[in-house]
Amino acid sequence: MKKNVLIIGAGGVAKVVAHKCAQHNDELGRIAIASRSISKCQAIIDSVQAKGGLKQPGEIKAYVLDALDVEATKAMIRETESQIVINVGSAFLNMAVLRACIDTGAAYLDTAIHEEPNKICETPPWYGNYEWKHLAECQEKGVTAILGAGFDPGVVNAYAALAQQEYFDNIESIDILDVNAGSHGKYFATNFDPEINFREFTGQVYSWQNSQWTTNRMFEVKRTDNLPVVGEQSLYLTGHDEVHSLSKHLDVPNVRFWMSFGDHYINVFTVLNKLGLLSEQPVRTAEGLEVVPLKVVKAVLPDPASLAPGYTGKTCIGDLIKGTKDGQPRELFIYNVADHEEAYAETDSQGISYTAGVPPVAAALLVARGEWDAHRMVNVEQLPAQPFLKLLDAMGLPTRIKDERGDRAWDQ
Amino acid sequence: MKKNVLIIGAGGVAKVVAHKCAQHNDELGRIAIASRSISKCQAIIDSVQAKGGLKQPGEIKAYVLDALDVEATKAMIRETESQIVINVGSAFLNMAVLRACIDTGAAYLDTAIHEEPNKICETPPWYGNYEWKHLAECQEKGVTAILGAGFDPGVVNAYAALAQQEYFDNIESIDILDVNAGSHGKYFATNFDPEINFREFTGQVYSWQNSQWTTNRMFEVKRTDNLPVVGEQSLYLTGHDEVHSLSKHLDVPNVRFWMSFGDHYINVFTVLNKLGLLSEQPVRTAEGLEVVPLKVVKAVLPDPASLAPGYTGKTCIGDLIKGTKDGQPRELFIYNVADHEEAYAETDSQGISYTAGVPPVAAALLVARGEWDAHRMVNVEQLPAQPFLKLLDAMGLPTRIKDERGDRAWDQ
Repeated sequence: MKKNVLIIGAGGVAKVVAHKCAQHNDELGRIAIASRSISKCQAIIDSVQAKGGLKQPGEIKAYVLDALDVEATKAMIRETESQIVINVGSAFLNMAVLRACIDTGAAYLDTAIHEEPNKICETPPWYGNYEWKHLAECQEKGVTAILGAGFDPGVVNAYAALAQQEYFDNIESIDILDVNAGSHGKYFATNFDPEINFREFTGQVYSWQNSQWTTNRMFEVKRTDNLPVVGEQSLYLTGHDEVHSLSKHLDVPNVRFWMSFGDHYINVFTVLNKLGLLSEQPVRTAEGLEVVPLKVVKAVLPDPASLAPGYTGKTCIGDLIKGTKDGQPRELFIYNVADHEEAYAETDSQGISYTAGVPPVAAALLVARGEWDAHRMVNVEQLPAQPFLKLLDAMGLPTRIKDERGDRAWDQ
Repeated sequence: MKKNVLIIGAGGVAKVVAHKCAQHNDELGRIAIASRSISKCQAIIDSVQAKGGLKQPGEIKAYVLDALDVEATKAMIRETESQIVINVGSAFLNMAVLRACIDTGAAYLDTAIHEEPNKICETPPWYGNYEWKHLAECQEKGVTAILGAGFDPGVVNAYAALAQQEYFDNIESIDILDVNAGSHGKYFATNFDPEINFREFTGQVYSWQNSQWTTNRMFEVKRTDNLPVVGEQSLYLTGHDEVHSLSKHLDVPNVRFWMSFGDHYINVFTVLNKLGLLSEQPVRTAEGLEVVPLKVVKAVLPDPASLAPGYTGKTCIGDLIKGTKDGQPRELFIYNVADHEEAYAETDSQGISYTAGVPPVAAALLVARGEWDAHRMVNVEQLPAQPFLKLLDAMGLPTRIKDERGDRAWDQ
């Protein structure tokens, strides 16, 4: 039984996390929000209070923290008596925050793999480069660390685990399909930090096919699917975190991740990428200033959080799973549909932040209750899927299944 | 009679200027090349020497100069005893170099209007913002200053003047058509300094129509022409220097400038412009670094000089002029066609640099001979066109005319 939550980060996902923690502060206890900018933390608290505030009287406070400073983070964990840390800051912070959690015994949760600023798309499996180097230490010290507990990675890992446990004897392929059919009305914007967003697409595309790592270029492999609610969509084989853990933890020969892109996104991305403007390596201007082009692109693009008020449409994210059950071939799609406008009405945030921010709070509740307090480092597919999906049903991200029996709630 | 030339700048156009001065050093005397980078100046001299060197034994020397430092430029003009300064450095230098020329009595020649780094597309007529403020002083001191003596502005101004003097009683419209039908083989590149190139297109498009200034957006107005050698081309109404002097000096109600663009150029330009990456105003990165996006775009694009070796194809630049002669309607196209590969063979430079760099040397020869030593500030259309075009015929940029009599050399 753990309580008191420290949220690290003050972006769009952190805002959703704060709203959801506030809605469950009877179980989660005190809430601390820490980032380099206290005004961004305070703005989140203002949003929480404007939307109905805490479920029961309690504390929600803003703090200044440079989370790369491990000692400062440890001091803050101790000062706030936080037993659960939800790290939804920059992906560059993970290892520093994990260190602080291991040293203080707090449970660690994040939603994306660690990255180093000057490296993209490292050797697979990606978790092996940073996170999994701490597997033994977490086990030894009994520290709970739940990696990738957002939607994708996160919920889609639970979908895969559930399918393996409940619906298949043998799985041949897991294709994770991530569609954002929403519209933000801007010429161009990314739905989360442009720096992290583009870094996903500028390197090699790793997929797990025929039980080995396969590489492609971005936008090289396309598929078209007719999906629930969002209809026909073009999706492209994309590198993504969950492929790197599912390929290890589930004995499945094919694990692929596909993301939807419109022609306009691909055009803008291609122009920027071909020109070298998405590079994470510095260039020197004629005046001698050293600057990372990708950081300038980030500076000119809309702040993803600013997209929320006008965002319309829906997301559809799920796992298309093929295999056999009782000797018969079987195929099912287990998925969620979320709505940008509903997300905004509830949490002042757009749907991409919502789908990423609700699951780590569900995970935190399961840690608080002891059900997911694993006392070791795990990916989501290593934990019981059912309590997680049940909680998400109640928290705004209901799971559905589409198969030969039709399209229905997953537990019907 | 003036002699000894100081070339300011060491880019692609400066290289052509140096080659052409070397071919005429019997008349022009000593040649000095000065820029912030002495190695770039020296590389130009190496190229001149590799291609056949000076016409007669003489001096060609490289110097370090920050031409924004007026006193340093004056000292260099005096030290090198230069009576002619060809300013083909950045457009940001013009006013400083002009000041140095006025103070020392040297003749001043340039190929493009002055610009200030933080301003684009100022009030028309553009020359009125900077250059023409020195008209009286040049007149008073008898200083020769020839503005815009490249191809466009420059040769196209002479075409217009010639047409007015020789071929028309009355001109209704001058449409300057600038087509580069060459291919550099890169994904994307600009043919001269990207910073100056893009700045031409990010502001208002000013044209002189019905005897008044008219504004449009870039790529708003398109025309299609079937032109000599280069064939059918799409051209777009574009703001350009010569419109701002021809509208003053020739009594013509319509003066417009049109440039050819392929769909790929327009797409890349549109993406960069819409995202704000062509802005001359600084942005601040998340890390707090202040940086001008356009300077980063410049840093990632190919150096225009690097395009020369693989450049193929031709340019076609000229004036389509409509009016009346002897009471009859008349239309003619007076133009030049240049070849990228021939330019490279002669001067190690691509055709855009060649067309811009040969005319100021022809102008310098006319200053040296006294024919164009105006002892005041002028634009090219205010000087006798015939000797200029005759020189250009001999120097690699022959003038042709296409009208109801056919397509022929201009003086036939």
